[in-house]
Amino acid sequence: MKKKIAITLGDPAGIGPEIIVKALLQHPDIYETTIPIVFGHRQLIERALRWTGLDAYIRELDNPQQVDAGSTKNIYCIRFAKLSQLPGPGKISAEGGRLAFEYIRTASQSAQQGSVQAVATAPIHKEALKLGGVPYLDHTEMFAKLTNSAHPMTLFVTGGLRIFFYSRHIPFRQIADHLDKERLVQTLRQGITYLKQIGIENPRMALAALNPHGGEGGMFGSEEIDILIPAVAEARQAGLSVEGPIPADSVFHLARIGHFHAVLSLYHDQGHIAAKTFDFDHTVSLTMGLPFLRTSVDHGTAMDLAGKNQANEISMVEAIKAAAKYCW
Amino acid sequence: MKKKIAITLGDPAGIGPEIIVKALLQHPDIYETTIPIVFGHRQLIERALRWTGLDAYIRELDNPQQVDAGSTKNIYCIRFAKLSQLPGPGKISAEGGRLAFEYIRTASQSAQQGSVQAVATAPIHKEALKLGGVPYLDHTEMFAKLTNSAHPMTLFVTGGLRIFFYSRHIPFRQIADHLDKERLVQTLRQGITYLKQIGIENPRMALAALNPHGGEGGMFGSEEIDILIPAVAEARQAGLSVEGPIPADSVFHLARIGHFHAVLSLYHDQGHIAAKTFDFDHTVSLTMGLPFLRTSVDHGTAMDLAGKNQANEISMVEAIKAAAKYCW
Repeated sequence: MKKKIAITLGDPAGIGPEIIVKALLQHPDIYETTIPIVFGHRQLIERALRWTGLDAYIRELDNPQQVDAGSTKNIYCIRFAKLSQLPGPGKISAEGGRLAFEYIRTASQSAQQGSVQAVATAPIHKEALKLGGVPYLDHTEMFAKLTNSAHPMTLFVTGGLRIFFYSRHIPFRQIADHLDKERLVQTLRQGITYLKQIGIENPRMALAALNPHGGEGGMFGSEEIDILIPAVAEARQAGLSVEGPIPADSVFHLARIGHFHAVLSLYHDQGHIAAKTFDFDHTVSLTMGLPFLRTSVDHGTAMDLAGKNQANEISMVEAIKAAAKYCW
Repeated sequence: MKKKIAITLGDPAGIGPEIIVKALLQHPDIYETTIPIVFGHRQLIERALRWTGLDAYIRELDNPQQVDAGSTKNIYCIRFAKLSQLPGPGKISAEGGRLAFEYIRTASQSAQQGSVQAVATAPIHKEALKLGGVPYLDHTEMFAKLTNSAHPMTLFVTGGLRIFFYSRHIPFRQIADHLDKERLVQTLRQGITYLKQIGIENPRMALAALNPHGGEGGMFGSEEIDILIPAVAEARQAGLSVEGPIPADSVFHLARIGHFHAVLSLYHDQGHIAAKTFDFDHTVSLTMGLPFLRTSVDHGTAMDLAGKNQANEISMVEAIKAAAKYCW
């Protein structure tokens, strides 16, 4: 059964509209598993068609139930009140931030009502949100607040490599201080739960080490001995299938070749370097812990490329496909 | 012209002897560019042949000048005084540490005299060295002391991706404190010099950022603003072709697809995760800043695999080939 996927347009001044129309019109395999519905203004989709030189009928819907099939000839989008002016490409604006949030809010509502099964999001811009008076830092925070979810958690998927994050947008200097045994156990437990939710029956997880060579018995740092080893021991005692800490330069390779279903990385770059050096274009970000699945491209608005038909849509294609593959 | 490459046997109790005989006997393409000479005991090579089920004539040499061609039928090795007993596989011992160092010392001597052009090393064991009273931590320190070199520098090569390291075996918590503008400029300068030494005419280097998203203008850490951006500015003023700091989750990908000839990573795992997740088996480590080139496998002695014919020799093969490819 094909899944209805809400696709939010992202910041109208970024590359979101372009990568969405390229994804929907140039990748017919999307329609094997999904019925994509864009949450964004018709006028912005029309502009993206002009910029990309692509052609399609745009069909406005009052709600997602009005469509039950998709094709590369039509783009279905939700109807929004007409804009008197469109934010210029590459221009960070209050209006851009407000519109980006409005698409997310309505998509979240549709997903909660069950009229779409998952949401795939195009990039938004932090500064535009701020200018627009949107009181959230990023997608994850928005969806968590909109759905009243306490523990959203990011899962990166690149081919067979799956990566959770213990911490993300904090200064490098705070990473080590941030480690806490109980929170690690809780995060490992959530990771296992979420892996089951996306269809893995008996998930095995690995915990990445912090120090080079995992500290080599304390020679290069003691967090493994003081915090990480005890956390893994406690998780195992609680019946979780967890191994580690494993030196960070091996653990992602080991997961990739099948030793583990996922790695819990301790900080943003630890997991991001692994995923994005391995396969930059095919990395997809899933947000778990919400009432529905949210997937995302893993790049920003790339304001400097907007309106130039230069942005690569592969990550958007992967995000849409992953939404259908992993939703529940 | 084929290059004579010294291959040090590593710790006799580790996988070194096995991966060397497998490399020399099962990868005939090695002989297209090299004449390999093992620096290690004949008895240990014989034992490795038994363990791997391989067959070859072992030819002992008093010095590397006695050979001018190689083949998969012969293993040439330097003559050492016969051992009354061989260190058992997987056993960390003083004797193992002493022998490993002896091979390195003689290979370094031969390379300084010019009777071999480069040295490719199999792994040694830190604890065995300590037990054996060898006063050095690792290969790099040994070669630096043996050749009186002040600034040895590691260069990782994985396909087209080249990575230098600003810091390596220090605790994670010390990484940020370790950053220093002048030392960064000096390291970038050395990097450019070494890239020229391995044959790149106009090297372009990138500096990796420390904080997630490169700090996002100070939101997630200030080292980019306080140290890294000024370091790149100073390096450029001095005429070096350097860019950055670039967020660590993009910079390795950008280098890999050709935007830069090398990345200066700020810490061990930053560069190691990139190289080893991208291609675990084909990562080779070069030591620059010595009078000769030294290459190395990028894995340890894997004591638990020793004597079992289970170790993968690909990294050894790559280290031998890289020695010939990049030596001067």
